[in-house]
Amino acid sequence: MSAVKKILFVVMDGLGDRGCKALGGMTPLQATSTPNLDWFTENGGSGVMDIIAPGVRPGSDTAHLSLLGHDPYEVYTGRGPFEAAGIGMSVKQGDVAFRCNFSTVNENYEVTDRRAGRIKAPETAELVKSINGMKIKGVEIFVKEGTEHRAALLLRGKGLVPNITDADSHNLGPVAASEGKGKKGEFTASIINEFVRRSHEMMKDHPVNLERRKKGLPEANILLPRGAGSFPKIRSFGEKNGMTGACVAGVGMIKGICGICGLDVIDLPKECTGGLDTDMIRKADVALDALQKYDFVLMNIKAPDISGHDRAAEQKCEVIKRLDEMAGHLKDNMPSDLVIVFTADHCTPSEVGDHSGDPVPVTIYTETMLKDEATKFSESGCAKGSIGRIRGYDLLPICIDLANRSEKFGA
Amino acid sequence: MSAVKKILFVVMDGLGDRGCKALGGMTPLQATSTPNLDWFTENGGSGVMDIIAPGVRPGSDTAHLSLLGHDPYEVYTGRGPFEAAGIGMSVKQGDVAFRCNFSTVNENYEVTDRRAGRIKAPETAELVKSINGMKIKGVEIFVKEGTEHRAALLLRGKGLVPNITDADSHNLGPVAASEGKGKKGEFTASIINEFVRRSHEMMKDHPVNLERRKKGLPEANILLPRGAGSFPKIRSFGEKNGMTGACVAGVGMIKGICGICGLDVIDLPKECTGGLDTDMIRKADVALDALQKYDFVLMNIKAPDISGHDRAAEQKCEVIKRLDEMAGHLKDNMPSDLVIVFTADHCTPSEVGDHSGDPVPVTIYTETMLKDEATKFSESGCAKGSIGRIRGYDLLPICIDLANRSEKFGA
Repeated sequence: MSAVKKILFVVMDGLGDRGCKALGGMTPLQATSTPNLDWFTENGGSGVMDIIAPGVRPGSDTAHLSLLGHDPYEVYTGRGPFEAAGIGMSVKQGDVAFRCNFSTVNENYEVTDRRAGRIKAPETAELVKSINGMKIKGVEIFVKEGTEHRAALLLRGKGLVPNITDADSHNLGPVAASEGKGKKGEFTASIINEFVRRSHEMMKDHPVNLERRKKGLPEANILLPRGAGSFPKIRSFGEKNGMTGACVAGVGMIKGICGICGLDVIDLPKECTGGLDTDMIRKADVALDALQKYDFVLMNIKAPDISGHDRAAEQKCEVIKRLDEMAGHLKDNMPSDLVIVFTADHCTPSEVGDHSGDPVPVTIYTETMLKDEATKFSESGCAKGSIGRIRGYDLLPICIDLANRSEKFGA
Repeated sequence: MSAVKKILFVVMDGLGDRGCKALGGMTPLQATSTPNLDWFTENGGSGVMDIIAPGVRPGSDTAHLSLLGHDPYEVYTGRGPFEAAGIGMSVKQGDVAFRCNFSTVNENYEVTDRRAGRIKAPETAELVKSINGMKIKGVEIFVKEGTEHRAALLLRGKGLVPNITDADSHNLGPVAASEGKGKKGEFTASIINEFVRRSHEMMKDHPVNLERRKKGLPEANILLPRGAGSFPKIRSFGEKNGMTGACVAGVGMIKGICGICGLDVIDLPKECTGGLDTDMIRKADVALDALQKYDFVLMNIKAPDISGHDRAAEQKCEVIKRLDEMAGHLKDNMPSDLVIVFTADHCTPSEVGDHSGDPVPVTIYTETMLKDEATKFSESGCAKGSIGRIRGYDLLPICIDLANRSEKFGA
């Protein structure tokens, strides 16, 4: 075999789009001049990719599982465990995790506001301190605040199962009691009900709530768990692929998922914000640095997704111009023994304002890459390429093979 | 999310073809001017579609199961149940169904003609009346005539399984006794053997047969069941997709399959015959009307399939001209919030005279559709498009996503 190469995935979050009225029926990629991305398309191989399956709308979590070579239908066990991991909680196989809302109950233990007036950090972080770390019937309880009024809850111990009903009725009125679905769930449900009771006990006269009471704001005086999920066994990246890997990302959830999959999470300088104002060139340099140490690097740039969610097609074009400059910087500074991929984790069409199930464009470049007819990096341009239409979990094996690192199957 | 859209599948039955000598090596679609279909291809996205899998020849039943989002390898349990449903019998989960032939036996109970001189309706319908509705050992027996010498048989009751051998030996000679494959099948086999005996008893001196005896025609004096299948659980269209749906079709089997899948079957005016002489514009109007009430409509036009079976390539070109006029009518009258699909359920190549496993062309159009390089609606023209090569059961999820109705998988 030839010498092995390194691999860089440049994941431009939510980049793919549909025809936009504001752009004369074109997508932002079609409407924007991208000479550097096009250089990779012209000199590499291209195609389109169903991140999960045709027509299936990926979340950022399921999308990155797929890009890292996992079939989300096999390993994704619900939002609870992945949300917990996504906000940086240390999750272990067998843990049962939940999403929670900080909610408001009145003196009759009836929910009057499911989101406690959309309370957020630092208040939620302060409240969590009073609850995190307790034990109920030998089960360890971990809680961490998420975005806005959200938190994640993790149970660790023996005899836990995820087959229980939500303690959040998703409606106003009396707090729901969690129930085991079948005999096995009863113990876990009893832990949850006790947890809910204690969360009220510990938060109802918490200084944060006394302050909110004074201001006439809904008090965050109870935590209501939902979406129980057991954390699955995911083979670590290194063990599965025989390579070291790292992730360069600004968004907590992406870092969480990559961490779960066994990538090292690289700390970013403050200019790399995970927002629209992020310094993409700086981020590319962090990725190039990481490639000196690691065999594989996944870089995620969140900005195009933000424009898609904001329904801002023209802003997305501006973001694409900056992504193209970043691609030029990578072209000028990348090592020669690299397999580099430009793609997205899903489409976020600017007229939809949320993720869609449309396939994403993909270009793979390396020195020995088969050249094809595709010359423009866009949804339709890449579709002309020789890669055809693949699935998200096909991408990593293809690149591992192009990097001369794949195992032979057979003799 | 954006506003949801409605979905129309225009299924041009057996439309795809291979190169025809009579057309200078072109397919009927390649050889015919189709400005209206081409408008959709030029302004929409296109590709080719393996209805079941590459090289697999679909039946009309398995093809429509796939177009409605089911994997036929999972839900298709044999011809018996689907033939029964296809000729309009009311089939329930757990029923065991068979295909039957009206056959001729002599005084020694030996088969002398497996098709009873290709007897057909109304004689078969008359004969069926004497058999339908009987009970054997508590099992209800339903029989209905099919096309020509065919009928379907349905057993409904406790303890029934499809694991039995055919009572039709597929040869002349002694009537075969059905046998249970394993202990469980013995009861069902005994019902079938008793059914065969009684069918002979009840038909041997039936007026229809006395008449045939007089004319010297083979008598239809026995029913021989084969192809046992248990009716599968199919999630209804509405429950599976969260949409209401209807079918606009003239052919019984298509209506049967669509009904099984949970679509409402729309009654057609008599001008819509399901034959070569059908009024396609009228049928398109019925579909457009149905879209006012339903979220999803599947329209099937049988005519091109008939030309394919007739090995009439030039006739197929004439049918295609009329299909193109119908496409023009749809273009002028369709609502703006529509995802419209032009495709086929399978190819029926004019030099083959039967279904083939070639992929079919597909064009999807909606206002925000990604435009691609494809400009001509044909087998090769659509292959240039950005949709690439998909499976039949991918089409519905893709359209549901384009209609902004898909669920997000993940967060």
